Amino acid sequence: MASQDELKRQAGWKAAEYVESGMKLGLGTGSTAAFAVERIGQLLKEGTLKDIVGVPTSIRTYEQAQGLGIPLATLDEVSDLDLAIDGADEVDPDLNVVKGRGGALLREKMVELASKKFVCIVDESKLVEGLGGSKDAMPVEIVQFCWKYNLERLQSLPELAGCEAKLRMAGDKPYVTDNSNYIVDLYFQTPIKDAKAAAAAMSELTGVVDHGLFLDMVDVVIIAAADGVQVKEKSK
Amino acid sequence: MASQDELKRQAGWKAAEYVESGMKLGLGTGSTAAFAVERIGQLLKEGTLKDIVGVPTSIRTYEQAQGLGIPLATLDEVSDLDLAIDGADEVDPDLNVVKGRGGALLREKMVELASKKFVCIVDESKLVEGLGGSKDAMPVEIVQFCWKYNLERLQSLPELAGCEAKLRMAGDKPYVTDNSNYIVDLYFQTPIKDAKAAAAAMSELTGVVDHGLFLDMVDVVIIAAADGVQVKEKSK
Repeated sequence: MASQDELKRQAGWKAAEYVESGMKLGLGTGSTAAFAVERIGQLLKEGTLKDIVGVPTSIRTYEQAQGLGIPLATLDEVSDLDLAIDGADEVDPDLNVVKGRGGALLREKMVELASKKFVCIVDESKLVEGLGGSKDAMPVEIVQFCWKYNLERLQSLPELAGCEAKLRMAGDKPYVTDNSNYIVDLYFQTPIKDAKAAAAAMSELTGVVDHGLFLDMVDVVIIAAADGVQVKEKSK
Repeated sequence: MASQDELKRQAGWKAAEYVESGMKLGLGTGSTAAFAVERIGQLLKEGTLKDIVGVPTSIRTYEQAQGLGIPLATLDEVSDLDLAIDGADEVDPDLNVVKGRGGALLREKMVELASKKFVCIVDESKLVEGLGGSKDAMPVEIVQFCWKYNLERLQSLPELAGCEAKLRMAGDKPYVTDNSNYIVDLYFQTPIKDAKAAAAAMSELTGVVDHGLFLDMVDVVIIAAADGVQVKEKSK
């Protein structure tokens, strides 16, 4: 049986097959996405791929891609991307995902919304029956001002019924995002019933900057499973 | 004829008449709101008002109210307010308003949304036939990340057709809000056709933190006009 890392490598390479010469690419963050970025770098070096521009979703990916010689840009310079490749924290059967446990949800969402196609790479532990179902954090980025008030408002939204909201900490201080905001992590006992309604209710709260529900955005999920790499495409 | 300042004082005092003992108050910012805060401080000192708690919308108002001996709190401590009193930059015939030219739109919106009643104080130059109609700035708070991309997306929203979007500057650097964000000011040649649709479209953009359209929030507008103070109540 292949090791976990070998499976992630295979999934990352599979994702890189979606890249074509001339494409503008959103480059994701995380251990599996890193294999895809590495592979894109190789294919560029070999000359198999040409004229690629990458828009990284994090400083870490920026540094990796730069080291590999991938030409880079920001959304300010290149705004219509052809393809984004990134990981996810949870994937449901309709290919809706939770992202942002790493704290970069807003940057990731902006890049991936700017992409015509979004390929998500995960290992099979990320598959859930319904979003929130992993019992792990669903992040919400909020302004620092009156965070406690906003945490309580989030927790009492009927659309998020039953969730427990906690301010994300970094040691004994609140964790601060790249945008100088805080993160409230929501924990669910049972999956969110209506993710679309939950997303809309969160977005509507003044003081909420963004949330980790990425709905109707993913086109392809590549799954590193114990018995090999699987590909799931969004049914149209 | 009364001076501009005397009219503002009259309007501020009129707004203070809505305050009752025991109330939790949102305290606004600006030259006219300052007269209301001053008057509330006087009435407390005289003993006409008792048991008031104020939630200021800015550092400036915090300092003024503290100097007047008004007990203060934040939304983290007191979340259901009875009344908010604040100024506005534009008021339309349905009492929808534009606010935030001072840059504190998010803090103001949070406090005023938390209030059962919102009394707005303006001078008659703020009355417009439709929002955006003053040809002055309608502010939108956005994250710093890829601000140019977000400025262009705002400007190309069909719901904001015809607007010109400019990054707000402070000298030769972008103006930074209390929440570490930038402000894009939108300028319209003709009033916004459908303010509700415009507000929804802006809120939906990832990277937009808040905007200056305060719709269906104001209950009473007190107008300092050349021929005296006028009161307009929201028709139910």
